[in-house]
Amino acid sequence: MYSKPKLPDSIQLAHGSGGLMTRELLDEIVFTTFQNPYLEQKHDGAIVPLEGPVVISTDSFVVSPIFFRGGNIGELAVHGTVNDVAMCGGIPKFLSLSFIIEEGLPTSDFLKIVHSIKVAADASGVQIVTGDTKVVESGKGDKIFINTTGIGSPHPKGRIAMEHVTVGDQVLVSGPIAAHGMAILSEREGLEFESEIQSDTTNLNHLVDDLLQNFGPAIHLLRDPTRGGVSGVCSEIAQDSDLGVVLRETDFPIDPQVSAACEILGLDPLYVANEGILCAIVDGNDASEILSFMKGHAKGSKAACIGAIVEEHPGKVVMESSIGGKRIVTPLIGEQLPRIC
Amino acid sequence: MYSKPKLPDSIQLAHGSGGLMTRELLDEIVFTTFQNPYLEQKHDGAIVPLEGPVVISTDSFVVSPIFFRGGNIGELAVHGTVNDVAMCGGIPKFLSLSFIIEEGLPTSDFLKIVHSIKVAADASGVQIVTGDTKVVESGKGDKIFINTTGIGSPHPKGRIAMEHVTVGDQVLVSGPIAAHGMAILSEREGLEFESEIQSDTTNLNHLVDDLLQNFGPAIHLLRDPTRGGVSGVCSEIAQDSDLGVVLRETDFPIDPQVSAACEILGLDPLYVANEGILCAIVDGNDASEILSFMKGHAKGSKAACIGAIVEEHPGKVVMESSIGGKRIVTPLIGEQLPRIC
Repeated sequence: MYSKPKLPDSIQLAHGSGGLMTRELLDEIVFTTFQNPYLEQKHDGAIVPLEGPVVISTDSFVVSPIFFRGGNIGELAVHGTVNDVAMCGGIPKFLSLSFIIEEGLPTSDFLKIVHSIKVAADASGVQIVTGDTKVVESGKGDKIFINTTGIGSPHPKGRIAMEHVTVGDQVLVSGPIAAHGMAILSEREGLEFESEIQSDTTNLNHLVDDLLQNFGPAIHLLRDPTRGGVSGVCSEIAQDSDLGVVLRETDFPIDPQVSAACEILGLDPLYVANEGILCAIVDGNDASEILSFMKGHAKGSKAACIGAIVEEHPGKVVMESSIGGKRIVTPLIGEQLPRIC
Repeated sequence: MYSKPKLPDSIQLAHGSGGLMTRELLDEIVFTTFQNPYLEQKHDGAIVPLEGPVVISTDSFVVSPIFFRGGNIGELAVHGTVNDVAMCGGIPKFLSLSFIIEEGLPTSDFLKIVHSIKVAADASGVQIVTGDTKVVESGKGDKIFINTTGIGSPHPKGRIAMEHVTVGDQVLVSGPIAAHGMAILSEREGLEFESEIQSDTTNLNHLVDDLLQNFGPAIHLLRDPTRGGVSGVCSEIAQDSDLGVVLRETDFPIDPQVSAACEILGLDPLYVANEGILCAIVDGNDASEILSFMKGHAKGSKAACIGAIVEEHPGKVVMESSIGGKRIVTPLIGEQLPRIC
């Protein structure tokens, strides 16, 4: 009934107006891609079937560049939040999706990102049920920022809590470290490596589901070592549990290309962000069985046991180096690599 | 155990690192302000008690300027999402809170905003249970963007759905229109009015709760006329219900200062954003009783009946003007006032 403007080649300020152009953008790209009964309520929100209690987690993604080897900001935004819900021992079910777009973003880039979100959401078993789109003037944002908030249900066999971490627990990682941060860095201007390091961005909720299903209370704590890396996660665990963490440098799984890139740039891979691995603090008695299980899982084939929880040096992380020395691992203080997620 | 850096005068890139400085910022400002048992889980998410089904809504706020007469981006971010949950017939209970801060934001501004969020959340009866903080380089954002995602439960007496809108329904607004958009505009450079128009930003969930409690199924649809204004909401209703909407210009409540400012700037108040009023489409038989109830409510003292749902001109909104004419109200196509929320 009203003449519908055709989608232009780039996103315009008017696409965030809440008027006809916003609706056009949503109808042609967002609703078409994600169609489901919840979005079709076309409320300012959605009513979804979910038994309580509810696990909720939120993340805003500002990664730069928005496209990188191994992924883009769209799938990262799905995986990041899906993984955070999983790390709380939750089974993620529904996501909200909110865009802050800088005027001028090519519509084709937006389409690619939305498509990646759909593929990642489907693979993770979550539905996009409500959303929001804002557009800011050129120079007031950076291409696109994405917020996702995930809700889900606690896993019936999950007993994840800091207070379950105890002396004798083993520290497992589900895969090689530092890939995401180095992939982002290698994309940035002036830091192109000849090798093609790929981000490890992926969902971990199915792995967590399977781990909890099989080992339930033996999984004491789960964390995904994103910003701050494995060091950040271990420092938090040491501080919050008031126990010590010992790590063994030689046992860390790391891709040789990633390791070489870290060395060239003088970065410690322990501090570099990951987006597709988890740290699990597990009961010492079940650790080897859990590790075998992880290694047999599609998302954990290169898993390793990298350390243990100890009584000594409470609140501190100590690294046993490859040449036999020991050093205290301090948490990252400031910024190592800005905007990696 | 580690020497703690003191909070500097402005937010730095390192505050988004996920390292010690992020934790410092969160501990000193965010956790201290919002303290509750859910945040203290210090997971990457929260587990909250909520019976299903779950109402969920999300909004990213990019309003410029971030401080304006009558409010700031912080309380706006609470009210906006709380109201969206309420408009779906939900009782909002919990909010996630995610910041994208531009490096250089004065820490005192951040503190003020966080404080406003706390006050608004308390007044709205919701708790901030999980969050995220990202920092982008100077020039890659605009001071601060905030995403909130709200979850809650459907009101037991709510029967809100587009399919309940029917011929004979009356269109009520809970207060004077166009205040928020004009307050924002009047703050912007070069558009200072002598009058001090205030944003109407406020929570509407208690009003909705009381309306549903007392009139349940007679409330057919609720919408908050934010971006796109009352015109946007009415156009959507006409299109989605395939019925006509008649509005009476003389019956619109509007503050004389707001009206004057609209006239000076050539803006139609019907398209200007509101952040503290709702449009209710209610059963014609109960409309006058519902209107009286609204007028007796703290959040609806200036409520008015502004129109009706009719069989004629399906899909269209027709305005009966003050001088007796009729005109079709088209929805806003593009951008009237960018970044008002």
